[in-house]
Amino acid sequence: MTRKIAILGATGSIGKSTLDIAERAPDRFEVVSVTAATNVEALAAIARRTSARLAVIADESRLPTLRDLLAGTSCQAAAGESALAEAAAGEAELVIAAIVGCAGLRPTMAAVEAGKTVALANKEALVTAGALMTSAAQKHGATLLPVDSEHNAIFQCLAGNRVEDASRIILTASGGPFRTASAEQIERASPAEAVAHPNWSMGAKISVDSATLMNKGLELIEAHYLFGLPSERIDILIHPQSVVHSMVEFVDGSVLAQLGSPDMRIAIAYALAWPERIPTPAQRLDLAQIGSLDFEMPDVQRFPALQLAREALEAGGASPIVLNAANEVAVASFLAGRIRFRDIAATVEQALQAADCAPPKSIADVLGVDRRTRLRVEASMKEHCS
Amino acid sequence: MTRKIAILGATGSIGKSTLDIAERAPDRFEVVSVTAATNVEALAAIARRTSARLAVIADESRLPTLRDLLAGTSCQAAAGESALAEAAAGEAELVIAAIVGCAGLRPTMAAVEAGKTVALANKEALVTAGALMTSAAQKHGATLLPVDSEHNAIFQCLAGNRVEDASRIILTASGGPFRTASAEQIERASPAEAVAHPNWSMGAKISVDSATLMNKGLELIEAHYLFGLPSERIDILIHPQSVVHSMVEFVDGSVLAQLGSPDMRIAIAYALAWPERIPTPAQRLDLAQIGSLDFEMPDVQRFPALQLAREALEAGGASPIVLNAANEVAVASFLAGRIRFRDIAATVEQALQAADCAPPKSIADVLGVDRRTRLRVEASMKEHCS
Repeated sequence: MTRKIAILGATGSIGKSTLDIAERAPDRFEVVSVTAATNVEALAAIARRTSARLAVIADESRLPTLRDLLAGTSCQAAAGESALAEAAAGEAELVIAAIVGCAGLRPTMAAVEAGKTVALANKEALVTAGALMTSAAQKHGATLLPVDSEHNAIFQCLAGNRVEDASRIILTASGGPFRTASAEQIERASPAEAVAHPNWSMGAKISVDSATLMNKGLELIEAHYLFGLPSERIDILIHPQSVVHSMVEFVDGSVLAQLGSPDMRIAIAYALAWPERIPTPAQRLDLAQIGSLDFEMPDVQRFPALQLAREALEAGGASPIVLNAANEVAVASFLAGRIRFRDIAATVEQALQAADCAPPKSIADVLGVDRRTRLRVEASMKEHCS
Repeated sequence: MTRKIAILGATGSIGKSTLDIAERAPDRFEVVSVTAATNVEALAAIARRTSARLAVIADESRLPTLRDLLAGTSCQAAAGESALAEAAAGEAELVIAAIVGCAGLRPTMAAVEAGKTVALANKEALVTAGALMTSAAQKHGATLLPVDSEHNAIFQCLAGNRVEDASRIILTASGGPFRTASAEQIERASPAEAVAHPNWSMGAKISVDSATLMNKGLELIEAHYLFGLPSERIDILIHPQSVVHSMVEFVDGSVLAQLGSPDMRIAIAYALAWPERIPTPAQRLDLAQIGSLDFEMPDVQRFPALQLAREALEAGGASPIVLNAANEVAVASFLAGRIRFRDIAATVEQALQAADCAPPKSIADVLGVDRRTRLRVEASMKEHCS
């Protein structure tokens, strides 16, 4: 039986990997809807290749072009926010939520409220709207399947176990490019140094998050909402080789770990085929060749972002939204050469202190806090830089 | 609801650890039957403490003593082979098969034929009678739960997965005391050197098996019968720290691993509570403190036992019985100073070459091959030594 899938964000990195896996198993998957932000040519090509029935471009100005490109096919072209929600809540059973950033919040929520199985590749859904998403999932019978490698690893380790038997989640972190750097070196780090991630090839923003360890802080928040464990039962462990993607310790003292080569298709395939598994072309892990897996405690002195994320999670309410928005603005400023590396955490800390932490009641509330935080942080930066 | 359990081999190491776990959760477990080989005092003490209803001593000459020791309790005393089978096939839902050696075969088969859930701690059940045990389990609806740390690890990694999605089982091996020794050093190894296992405290025979790696060869055979994967899809990987107890690679490239401190109570607790988990007092794993986990390929030149076990498994029939019996005789001779370390594998190889490999059709056949192999190997040794 084929599973009907919708890919929200089909032209991005996760979208492409999802298509790669789905197209290798045409007897299992039928791509029914695809969406993209602006890349109308790539979207049309995907829609043609997969014989999708609905293609949605977020940017409404590009709808005429999309229509032209899909002429002669049976694929419907659509644009804008309500069309995105339609792609998410339509005939697909499984929705891959891979739209980057806060733009993904409404379509993801539409899929959740339609009771879909949602493969979550959008970090913001859980970081900024974790309580809303998980309670909506419960209310509407939706299933959330994590796609990023750490949470997918935890999800795999929990399979066949009761979550209440998990005593601790252990999120592994590569430690980033400054793992062994001194506090002084970190302080002077340039954007070029910060984006040089040792194990994964990623975009500049995520690479900087990996250098500050804010990436792991955001994942800590996601893990809390996905698996329901409190902050103090989610540990972060530095593991430079990034072979162990994360672990779960159980009440009996047993620890389950998921390992693999750095290929997102493994996690995507697990989400697509769950609770079964399907083959992927990902390289097999050769531990004898790797030789050694190392582990060490993270240093919260040199990497204050970890503690900030933990505090935002514990404060709850809108704090994680503020953390995320302030971090994005700060990282962009750092990459533009306007602030120093250590100022990223300082900016986030300041934003959190000034934050109004009333819990958001809707995605509109989340987007409001996000927008206001960005404006506030940008204004405060201009003040400091002028 | 309490689960009624029978402990076959209650006075041994696994038996004691089982009691330790079961007695910590009296709301979950009710010990109904206990057995021992000869230690009638310890058996009676356990029966009194647990309020078991049946205590069986294998050695019939000790039945009067057992009766005396249990006077005034409601525990029935019994002795001999049929009483052992009764303990295995009686009112318990879960039977812990922890009798050491071939003496455990008949009682274990009795539990399997009674359709019980059988926590297997007796290596011989699968090494020498793997095909018989697994087909009987299928026929009578029995469930086999592995208790030794490697197979329990694999069983944990397979939970929530379909066995057919497993592409490879990776059995880890400490490498034993001669992991880094030269071929010449290994040749001259004394019994004292061979029993010095780096990570686990074990008996002399098992320690020698760990030094030759025959231990891992026997586990390879067990893994084949337990999980149904062919020899070429069961790898052995040297991992000196013995923290990763074993792993499973799946068709998608994902690897699940089970880790823990060297405490048999973790695996026992999993078998007792499966598919749930219960707390144990086992030390929690601290990977940051351990620091590093190392992996390397085993060297079949220095450790020929591995290849012998693989060949015995692939030859099938009675070969694994011969492998096991010849190895026991050879190890005993080595420990007694009668043969050199390298002669252990040579003895086993010779025995396998001379073996009649007709598949055993019953436990009686298994015991017959076992007995004849022992006599044959002992006779051939006397010839060589005289």
